Amino acid sequence: MHTIKELEKLVSEEIDREILRLNNTEPKNLYEPIGYTLSMGGKRLRPVMVLLACNLFTHDITKAIPAALAIEVFHNFTLLHDDIMDKADMRRNRQAVHKKYNENIAILSGDAMSIMAYNYLQKCETQNLGKMIGLFSQTALEVCEGQQFDMDFESRMNVSIPEYLNMIRLKTAVLLACSLKTGALAANASDQMADLLYVFGLDLGIAFQLQDDLLDVFADQEKFGKKIGGDIVSNKKTFLLLKALELSDDPTKKELLDWIAKKEFDVQEKIEAVRSIYTKLNIKEITQMCIEDFYQSAINVWTEIDLANETKAELLLLANMIMNRDH
Amino acid sequence: MHTIKELEKLVSEEIDREILRLNNTEPKNLYEPIGYTLSMGGKRLRPVMVLLACNLFTHDITKAIPAALAIEVFHNFTLLHDDIMDKADMRRNRQAVHKKYNENIAILSGDAMSIMAYNYLQKCETQNLGKMIGLFSQTALEVCEGQQFDMDFESRMNVSIPEYLNMIRLKTAVLLACSLKTGALAANASDQMADLLYVFGLDLGIAFQLQDDLLDVFADQEKFGKKIGGDIVSNKKTFLLLKALELSDDPTKKELLDWIAKKEFDVQEKIEAVRSIYTKLNIKEITQMCIEDFYQSAINVWTEIDLANETKAELLLLANMIMNRDH
Repeated sequence: MHTIKELEKLVSEEIDREILRLNNTEPKNLYEPIGYTLSMGGKRLRPVMVLLACNLFTHDITKAIPAALAIEVFHNFTLLHDDIMDKADMRRNRQAVHKKYNENIAILSGDAMSIMAYNYLQKCETQNLGKMIGLFSQTALEVCEGQQFDMDFESRMNVSIPEYLNMIRLKTAVLLACSLKTGALAANASDQMADLLYVFGLDLGIAFQLQDDLLDVFADQEKFGKKIGGDIVSNKKTFLLLKALELSDDPTKKELLDWIAKKEFDVQEKIEAVRSIYTKLNIKEITQMCIEDFYQSAINVWTEIDLANETKAELLLLANMIMNRDH
Repeated sequence: MHTIKELEKLVSEEIDREILRLNNTEPKNLYEPIGYTLSMGGKRLRPVMVLLACNLFTHDITKAIPAALAIEVFHNFTLLHDDIMDKADMRRNRQAVHKKYNENIAILSGDAMSIMAYNYLQKCETQNLGKMIGLFSQTALEVCEGQQFDMDFESRMNVSIPEYLNMIRLKTAVLLACSLKTGALAANASDQMADLLYVFGLDLGIAFQLQDDLLDVFADQEKFGKKIGGDIVSNKKTFLLLKALELSDDPTKKELLDWIAKKEFDVQEKIEAVRSIYTKLNIKEITQMCIEDFYQSAINVWTEIDLANETKAELLLLANMIMNRDH
């Protein structure tokens, strides 16, 4: 088995090669922003998951590299278009594409990326290609559905916890699940194996997003990288906020709703006020318990995967890495 | 053989069924705008071409219906995103999606449409599916490249005629070519047949776009539907303008460039002034000759297609229908 570090290095080299190729392809205004988007880096979690899942069944992980690129390019496409929609000017301390270039270039480059993902995927030489393309299309559409639900929630105050969990399943978890299943399919694993990995990825993905919500409020500012409290400032309907609205008594609920309704406020004051409501209501511990539930559910699936423990150990390491991150 | 009318009716029924399904799918804000986009109609030229090409080789054209839907949905996706980029508020006398809903919904619905196109395509049951998906991805990416070249040309004054022809090949012609080839592949036609139809569609597509440029300046206003002269007003680098810049003597060229540079002008005055320069330079006849060249090239390919004349007659009818339109 390759270690996660080795897979990260391999993914990073492959992406660098692609960026070089893209920077030399015409029209420049279409392909250079794509190279720029891919160069912004990030965790490369999804392509690593593709290769790791492939590696569970075969030593030859090169056959899954096109699929790993496909999913990373698709993921970066969603970030690119999300940044336009959210009017987010910065990503990972660099200008978003629609700021560095312009909005039209950002729309069109994103469109091209979503098509390029299929081009990469088609380079996989396996009898499972049809299944992989079908899974990818279904997943990609679900990610769009998740993004739309997320936008719809902005103007709704009555979002329920199950609705929220369904939204993050679509927006975040299915692509992690798809990454693992795709790697397994590229290695010609059985459908049953591929499906178990999918369910493992789904549970892990929901835990991953809940962890994200939690870090946005309670992370250590020095390690976190971006500004803490962004979700509170923008009234994002996260698990934490929805749970707080559910558990608060009438005066606390009024206080919370007042902060949400305020058009003018001191940012730091709002963050601290909402955080202290969360603390009073034990929201941190409740969220951690919910994360633990999904994580435990993933571990149960992991146990079911019919492979030697030493083979599947790296998968568990990855899960723990995701759960123990501080940014 | 089915007549073009019959194919149009079949396509229209299939699209109506899809619209109904989309209008009942959640999230509403994602799928309803897609149904709205598809309901705006238009010529349905591309799906008709898919079915017509399929019908050249088999009576059972139902097997090409998913591919016909795929290409129509993709085409409408490009119109939807183009309208955002061009800030065009109306399409076919109805509000563009980004006006009727909002820009974020228009971006995301378009993203979903481009993925849905693959979902439709995958429903085709043929051994050629891999080829069809590969062709579709290549074509879709070329359409993006064509759109980027088109946007790049806006800020360039030194666009050459070959550059322009390459741009319209990418932006318009390859999708018509792809439609015919896809229909042939769905019918399990030979690669050689499929390739001939592709080349036929490419020539026809370039003639089609040049015809579009011509109609925008010289159509009969009553039959044309939209306002004549739009390309002149917006200084679009069409074949007509590029040819006029190439052929004009220094004073005429200066007059043309002055009109292009003017920030404030009477719209009707500009249209008439530029049109009279075109008339003086015989641009209408020169464009018609160029259209005729591409049309003739398409007909030569048609002659080469090894099918009975009565079988392939409908293909010729379609070509003539496209060339003799007045809107």
